[in-house]
Amino acid sequence: MNGLKLTIRNNKEKTIVQVGPYAIGKDFVIIAGPCSVENEKQTLETARIVQAAGANLLRGGAFKPRTSPYSFQGLGLKALKILQKAKKETGLPIVSEVLDPRDVGWMGDYVDVFQIGARNMQNFSLLKEVGKTKHPVILKRGMHSTLQEWLWCAEYILNEGNPNVILCERGIRTFERYCRNTLDITAVPAIKEISHLPVIVDPSHASGRASLISSLSLAAVAAGADGLLIEVHYHPEEALCDREQALSPQQFSELTPKIKLLRNFMEGIL
Amino acid sequence: MNGLKLTIRNNKEKTIVQVGPYAIGKDFVIIAGPCSVENEKQTLETARIVQAAGANLLRGGAFKPRTSPYSFQGLGLKALKILQKAKKETGLPIVSEVLDPRDVGWMGDYVDVFQIGARNMQNFSLLKEVGKTKHPVILKRGMHSTLQEWLWCAEYILNEGNPNVILCERGIRTFERYCRNTLDITAVPAIKEISHLPVIVDPSHASGRASLISSLSLAAVAAGADGLLIEVHYHPEEALCDREQALSPQQFSELTPKIKLLRNFMEGIL
Amino acid sequence: MNGLKLTIRNNKEKTIVQVGPYAIGKDFVIIAGPCSVENEKQTLETARIVQAAGANLLRGGAFKPRTSPYSFQGLGLKALKILQKAKKETGLPIVSEVLDPRDVGWMGDYVDVFQIGARNMQNFSLLKEVGKTKHPVILKRGMHSTLQEWLWCAEYILNEGNPNVILCERGIRTFERYCRNTLDITAVPAIKEISHLPVIVDPSHASGRASLISSLSLAAVAAGADGLLIEVHYHPEEALCDREQALSPQQFSELTPKIKLLRNFMEGIL
Amino acid sequence: MNGLKLTIRNNKEKTIVQVGPYAIGKDFVIIAGPCSVENEKQTLETARIVQAAGANLLRGGAFKPRTSPYSFQGLGLKALKILQKAKKETGLPIVSEVLDPRDVGWMGDYVDVFQIGARNMQNFSLLKEVGKTKHPVILKRGMHSTLQEWLWCAEYILNEGNPNVILCERGIRTFERYCRNTLDITAVPAIKEISHLPVIVDPSHASGRASLISSLSLAAVAAGADGLLIEVHYHPEEALCDREQALSPQQFSELTPKIKLLRNFMEGIL
Repeated sequence: MNGLKLTIRNNKEKTIVQVGPYAIGKDFVIIAGPCSVENEKQTLETARIVQAAGANLLRGGAFKPRTSPYSFQGLGLKALKILQKAKKETGLPIVSEVLDPRDVGWMGDYVDVFQIGARNMQNFSLLKEVGKTKHPVILKRGMHSTLQEWLWCAEYILNEGNPNVILCERGIRTFERYCRNTLDITAVPAIKEISHLPVIVDPSHASGRASLISSLSLAAVAAGADGLLIEVHYHPEEALCDREQALSPQQFSELTPKIKLLRNFMEGIL
Repeated sequence: MNGLKLTIRNNKEKTIVQVGPYAIGKDFVIIAGPCSVENEKQTLETARIVQAAGANLLRGGAFKPRTSPYSFQGLGLKALKILQKAKKETGLPIVSEVLDPRDVGWMGDYVDVFQIGARNMQNFSLLKEVGKTKHPVILKRGMHSTLQEWLWCAEYILNEGNPNVILCERGIRTFERYCRNTLDITAVPAIKEISHLPVIVDPSHASGRASLISSLSLAAVAAGADGLLIEVHYHPEEALCDREQALSPQQFSELTPKIKLLRNFMEGIL
Repeated sequence: MNGLKLTIRNNKEKTIVQVGPYAIGKDFVIIAGPCSVENEKQTLETARIVQAAGANLLRGGAFKPRTSPYSFQGLGLKALKILQKAKKETGLPIVSEVLDPRDVGWMGDYVDVFQIGARNMQNFSLLKEVGKTKHPVILKRGMHSTLQEWLWCAEYILNEGNPNVILCERGIRTFERYCRNTLDITAVPAIKEISHLPVIVDPSHASGRASLISSLSLAAVAAGADGLLIEVHYHPEEALCDREQALSPQQFSELTPKIKLLRNFMEGIL
Repeated sequence: MNGLKLTIRNNKEKTIVQVGPYAIGKDFVIIAGPCSVENEKQTLETARIVQAAGANLLRGGAFKPRTSPYSFQGLGLKALKILQKAKKETGLPIVSEVLDPRDVGWMGDYVDVFQIGARNMQNFSLLKEVGKTKHPVILKRGMHSTLQEWLWCAEYILNEGNPNVILCERGIRTFERYCRNTLDITAVPAIKEISHLPVIVDPSHASGRASLISSLSLAAVAAGADGLLIEVHYHPEEALCDREQALSPQQFSELTPKIKLLRNFMEGIL
């Protein structure tokens, strides 16, 4: 990995990103919630459900990068206020995507973790802007990006002074058409081989199919991931976006104990 | 192409984007110049050379989206002032990439055509911002994007009120490793089948190899492209970026007459 | 191109493959005909049509490699006899695909040129078997193959003693979904840069859309291809396979004069 | 999965392929051994090592499909006789690749399981030939194949009367360059969703890097795979092919107990 300085392992210790009570990179974390914040009821109920099922952080989109300008673009500030309310009630720290460098400053008051989406992985203005904060950043891999390019994007953030980067594998684009994307599970051990940064997996965007998320989540745990990012909706069939991939409350609450048992087991055998 | 409204052909007339004296979509245009503006001498000399060889517009990067934060990032405003000088001397309209929505407002005073790069194709904040101007926009295809997604990005710009979009095919990412990317020549007739927007080809980024640019340029003309975007450097071996793909003055001035002869010939037989 | 010995250019002269009166590699050839031989009437009529329109060789499948075992698998020997009849009447040399090393021996009596299909590019038993003959071989690029791997397959044939190899670019598999495959037009000048072998283009399989074949054929000529392989059916809407990509007699006879004019023009300007 | 008849799940019971004492599809199997049989000593020692470490079947290449005709092509019949000897001593059933339909008949006397390699996935002559036997067949996924195409190839075998097909995911080709291929872990649960056939994973070819094989093996188990195919060489640094991906005896014997513990654990939680 030619030229990388700040993101490669060398003799550096593993990076631990502290979010509320969680030391990401050491503690395994489950981040769950709806694709987008649609209204107060949907978000609060989903927050309660995922918390009860064992999730550690709440995700919810306020600004949605949508292929079409005619699709729902997110509730913006209103969504962030709803997420605040959900945090107040459940205590779950908030993860939400930032799309525009002009929003980084004020959004930091509403979210605990910035998410940089796959389409913006190489939005260098945005990377530099979050790099100037100390906020934790989940940096999703671009659907067309090599591991090296992904690490270079993390390097942009670290180079501005923010060490709190969590990498997130979310599937790459291939010719295969059964799933929305192809989860590159190898990215997990490969990143651990190259870098000191924590790496989590998003099986929801990777597969786009709720029926596969349980198997992929368990595979990610076995491969050594530091966490999972899973879409959950209290009524998936009514979701305003990505409804095919959202888990129902029941599916999610059946999955989380397996994830935790497997994680404990893996710590025992490795 | 489900859902597209403003970018599809239907009964709409072909879009003509006027840039200085050129009616892009009708007149074939050759856009040439260095990858990045490095200094006044390099840019002015290259501008003179490409103009003498028959180029119609001058391209030059002021803000460079680089994989590494340690690579040359462009001269910024200084570069734009140099490009202005080159325009004053040669009369060539200026094309330059805009990376940040905060720059759209003031950069319009310096450039005739905004370029949105492949990495920013789905930077929706940026698309909306250039959509609020009337400036012509060259929208490069993301290296991982389907034709449909690309057209949706153009739709974002049109939807904000700016009809002056020129699409630019610049190669997609595949497993093939001889070239930097794979030029998807089919995009040219396919876009013409679906949309009324003009489409140009960038063989320099598509191939990354100077030796192949002549053949690919001629193929693009034969396929029906409305123009070409070609990197030329007065001393390619000294270029600060992408030196393997820049044509020398001699290579470029041997190529342009062939392009023009072929374009005329094609108009005769089609 | 590490390790290649017999297929690389070095100081070797360009390979010319003689097929009947045509010196492929010097003379531009148009190979046309149906995807598969369906019956005598269809093949003979199509043969007359393509000959009248200016085709130089007749293609027709006797053994069809089909994704499904329940699809039409070709008429086998019966098809080859029909092709013989078509040759007798029109004088067009015959190109047909060989699928099985056990068929190479006897099929040579019926066909002038063996075709190795994309799916069999790395069927090394088959490559060695055609390598033991002196029959011309059209070696299609695998839809997943790098240029280097493709040349290695040609090397297998040359290494057995048969120098008469013609490479055929027919599209590679990518994430793009508008067309069946992505025509890698760059393969044409790239192969000419690396190798002395002739290279032709199959726009029919590359695009899978009749409406795009004219533009792609002309692009291939401009890029320097030595010939084209085009599917033509006397009634495309009735074709037993690949009907979306077959040209009608009228479409084909409008295209061939443009191809020939363009080829002559290109010889003048290069 | 349009049109598939014999390979889809419907109400069919899961296929169990019996190989010696192992009921593949029910019993988890570890298939291990060298890429190619190089000589008696190497194969017998490796066989003893993998057996001692808990492998269930022995793999070893007699006929090697090599990119270059100048690379080691395998020892052929001599290799098969060495494998027989290894079986006699260790009792491990033998898996070996068949490349040519002419070899299917006699090779059945030497091997317990035919392997069809990725490059030959769509070699329909070969598929039909193994379909006429009752021998178990490991059908590797082509590196460019969709799940649907892969299942169609299995359908070819079943359609000839042989139900004993085991699918093997071995990585697909993408733009990512850190590993040789991209392991499509999703193929495991996806195939189980669509089909009744057992599916195993080859992490060695998928990654091409010995350092990643442990993590990928465990991920495959967690994802629900029915077995693993792992390259092991008694002296990896001396291997005649694929030496970067072969596990050493020590690496393999550290891995197998983890695989078995994890498999047992997964059976408990699912």
